[in-house]
Amino acid sequence: MRNFVIGLLAAGLFAGGASAQEIKRDYPYPWNKPIGYAEMVQHGDTLYVSGMTADGATMGDQVRAVYDAIGKLLAERGLDSTAVIKENVYTRDIEAFKAAGEIRKAFYKDDVYPAATWVQIDRLYNPEQLVVVELEVAVKP
Amino acid sequence: MRNFVIGLLAAGLFAGGASAQEIKRDYPYPWNKPIGYAEMVQHGDTLYVSGMTADGATMGDQVRAVYDAIGKLLAERGLDSTAVIKENVYTRDIEAFKAAGEIRKAFYKDDVYPAATWVQIDRLYNPEQLVVVELEVAVKP
Amino acid sequence: MRNFVIGLLAAGLFAGGASAQEIKRDYPYPWNKPIGYAEMVQHGDTLYVSGMTADGATMGDQVRAVYDAIGKLLAERGLDSTAVIKENVYTRDIEAFKAAGEIRKAFYKDDVYPAATWVQIDRLYNPEQLVVVELEVAVKP
Repeated sequence: MRNFVIGLLAAGLFAGGASAQEIKRDYPYPWNKPIGYAEMVQHGDTLYVSGMTADGATMGDQVRAVYDAIGKLLAERGLDSTAVIKENVYTRDIEAFKAAGEIRKAFYKDDVYPAATWVQIDRLYNPEQLVVVELEVAVKP
Repeated sequence: MRNFVIGLLAAGLFAGGASAQEIKRDYPYPWNKPIGYAEMVQHGDTLYVSGMTADGATMGDQVRAVYDAIGKLLAERGLDSTAVIKENVYTRDIEAFKAAGEIRKAFYKDDVYPAATWVQIDRLYNPEQLVVVELEVAVKP
Repeated sequence: MRNFVIGLLAAGLFAGGASAQEIKRDYPYPWNKPIGYAEMVQHGDTLYVSGMTADGATMGDQVRAVYDAIGKLLAERGLDSTAVIKENVYTRDIEAFKAAGEIRKAFYKDDVYPAATWVQIDRLYNPEQLVVVELEVAVKP
């Protein structure tokens, strides 16, 4: 038994951990493959969540809908906001996004936040989109 | 021998896995060091590919040339598109980039795609550049 | 002792490496929690540094102040620029940022550089900010 364990450990360390087979990709939406992206990709200890957008007439509506959609995707994988380690927000109106700050903060429970960068850009995938949120999330390999 | 193996394992885990020596940086182009960036940096199980641009009169031309250049860099390291886990695209014209979607998808073989975020921004490094593509790629540590 | 070491190794590999407890978050500034972000988050072998901005009348002043602030945060954690593996710069004036290139390069000692993507965008968090620098840094897990 001891030799068995030592053998596994040696194989794990000396052969390298990552291989193409160990990448898990999720395509939950019907438009994922036609556009050409995975909604989520897990590799090692990190889950990459593609930039998430959502319908909504105002910035507040879109911010609420985006984080609701993210929360649902995470919950389906047994995760919640406390596993989020990095957030990139691209918005067409950063003052409106700042004004929706409490809506966003309601997603991040227990006052636990990711590293974050927010910038104001020209346009998103669809002209009516005001904000896109991209995340990296900690997972067990 | 057994004690030697155990010693290596203990050293690897207790001293931490990452150290400055284990970061591999590639500077294949003559402008990498003068501008001040590595074209690719490998750390642990992840290869970071700097934002790639390419010459071309139209968006379609630039998209084709960018993914050709990326494919060449990956192939030189024994990798292909199925190892790409994350893609960030910054473009000056997202409608033109969407219209070049099939050119981009031709790079991603077997319908295997990364997590992705695409945004339209003001300008890139050179004024004639229409699109830049930044990647993270899964590698063996 | 040998069995103790083997036990630890087995537990570490078979239980998976990442868990919520192993994420380290830093909130060094009084505005981190009110705005809702961590200045730095460490997970596994990677330290994520939130987009850093700084006061300054000109691009050169802001670039110097941003990299000074980053250098200070890294030094407090026993790190320096040679551990930086990825850099994303979002600036309101990429020609001015390029003109400040030597100020930036002075931060990256020994001609050791990260993978990098630089883009020109509309606006940052505050209207007077000209540049934000976001980093990923290699650390020991």
